[in-house]
Amino acid sequence: MTYCLAIQVQSGIVFAADSRTNAGVDQVSTYSKIYAFSLAGDRVVVLLSSGNLATTQSVVNHLHRELASRTAQQSLKSIEHMFDIAQHVGEVSCAVQSRYQGEETQETVNMQAHFILGGQIAGQPPEIYLIYPQGNYISASNAKPYLQVGETKYGKPILDRVIRPETSLEDAARCALISLDSTARSNVSVGPPFELLFYRSETCTIQEHVVLEGDSTLYAAFRNSWSDGLKNAFKSLPRFDWESRNQAGGTES
Amino acid sequence: MTYCLAIQVQSGIVFAADSRTNAGVDQVSTYSKIYAFSLAGDRVVVLLSSGNLATTQSVVNHLHRELASRTAQQSLKSIEHMFDIAQHVGEVSCAVQSRYQGEETQETVNMQAHFILGGQIAGQPPEIYLIYPQGNYISASNAKPYLQVGETKYGKPILDRVIRPETSLEDAARCALISLDSTARSNVSVGPPFELLFYRSETCTIQEHVVLEGDSTLYAAFRNSWSDGLKNAFKSLPRFDWESRNQAGGTES
Repeated sequence: MTYCLAIQVQSGIVFAADSRTNAGVDQVSTYSKIYAFSLAGDRVVVLLSSGNLATTQSVVNHLHRELASRTAQQSLKSIEHMFDIAQHVGEVSCAVQSRYQGEETQETVNMQAHFILGGQIAGQPPEIYLIYPQGNYISASNAKPYLQVGETKYGKPILDRVIRPETSLEDAARCALISLDSTARSNVSVGPPFELLFYRSETCTIQEHVVLEGDSTLYAAFRNSWSDGLKNAFKSLPRFDWESRNQAGGTES
Repeated sequence: MTYCLAIQVQSGIVFAADSRTNAGVDQVSTYSKIYAFSLAGDRVVVLLSSGNLATTQSVVNHLHRELASRTAQQSLKSIEHMFDIAQHVGEVSCAVQSRYQGEETQETVNMQAHFILGGQIAGQPPEIYLIYPQGNYISASNAKPYLQVGETKYGKPILDRVIRPETSLEDAARCALISLDSTARSNVSVGPPFELLFYRSETCTIQEHVVLEGDSTLYAAFRNSWSDGLKNAFKSLPRFDWESRNQAGGTES
């Protein structure tokens, strides 16, 4: 499994991903799932991926090959709109999947991949898209300004509670980190190092790339601080009727 | 969908459930999913259910029929061990499912149901079990002293962060409530009223039965308090390097 997400707030986009891959519990490895294309100050294109690793690598290689080619009809650099890039990535993904699906043996191997695409083309607003294995895609909305792929459920409640369009980029990143940490605690197939990529609107370059190793001081500080914060939040929750009654009677509840 | 859970701590067991049922989004209803059998001071048996409502009701009706019968070979009152009750409920569930599965039409209807069983038989320790649709079952462990059925993922991280065997029964109930609320926010097929049942070890009677309507003052107080607590926890999270640099330079981040 995998867990990647992109959060779009007014000041920019945060991309976040775990980096654990597995083909069964006896074949666990570490791969970055964030692919950033900084294209000469004119545009930033970032891809996050979940699903079949061979498919996602093949898609990314194809996109690099197009960028390096002088004869490619289109590339991440030439396509005019972000939604057309989403369309293109979807088509490349479908082509890759069907190429290997044909050679499938009796063992069923899932070739599917999900992508999150995000970034900005100069003169256009920043955008994020979720691209399905079928090649179709959706954008985020103001009411739900984030997109997730992979093991999405464990880390969703904290996003729903915290993320608003006006949330700062750094708070969005902190929220993404809590979301990743919650998921990693509940699903062993999601794990550190966690990667965070900060994109500030209108800059057309990546600002910061933070990699948090599982044993890093910053990650430990995050975990401890969040754990303490939750404990405090817990302590202030309302009491049930009988607890105050019992306390009035001197009984510890 | 449904979300039910039971948390076993040293001081007892908390049972918690939402009460939304649906057969498609155009057929949403409210049903209690907690069935408590207080059996004359000798034992307490509680069932929580998720899955096909006809199956779960039929299983519960069967258990009541056995209790009322003078000729039934066994009942919740006569079975000697909690794990044998789990075995019995599993068998009844399988029998009910196969009775209607045979009459299935071309439409595929899922007859399956999951149950959480919990309680105490005098002279034996309190226990909780998860009973699968196939009739087999597992108990909780000290390392993971809770069991869930239904939409389990959204509400799991908070349990993993908070619940320990030494957690108080009331804190376990508050945690269950946060877990239910997180799930209801992320999945519309889970919703209030939320029910909480408190069982204190060695008493063999149910202590408290709290029903929180969606618009109740207590539920609103919980939601607001938790929301404020999370905001505070968020504010205390560590800053990224450049935030302190920027702040030192007088720039708001």
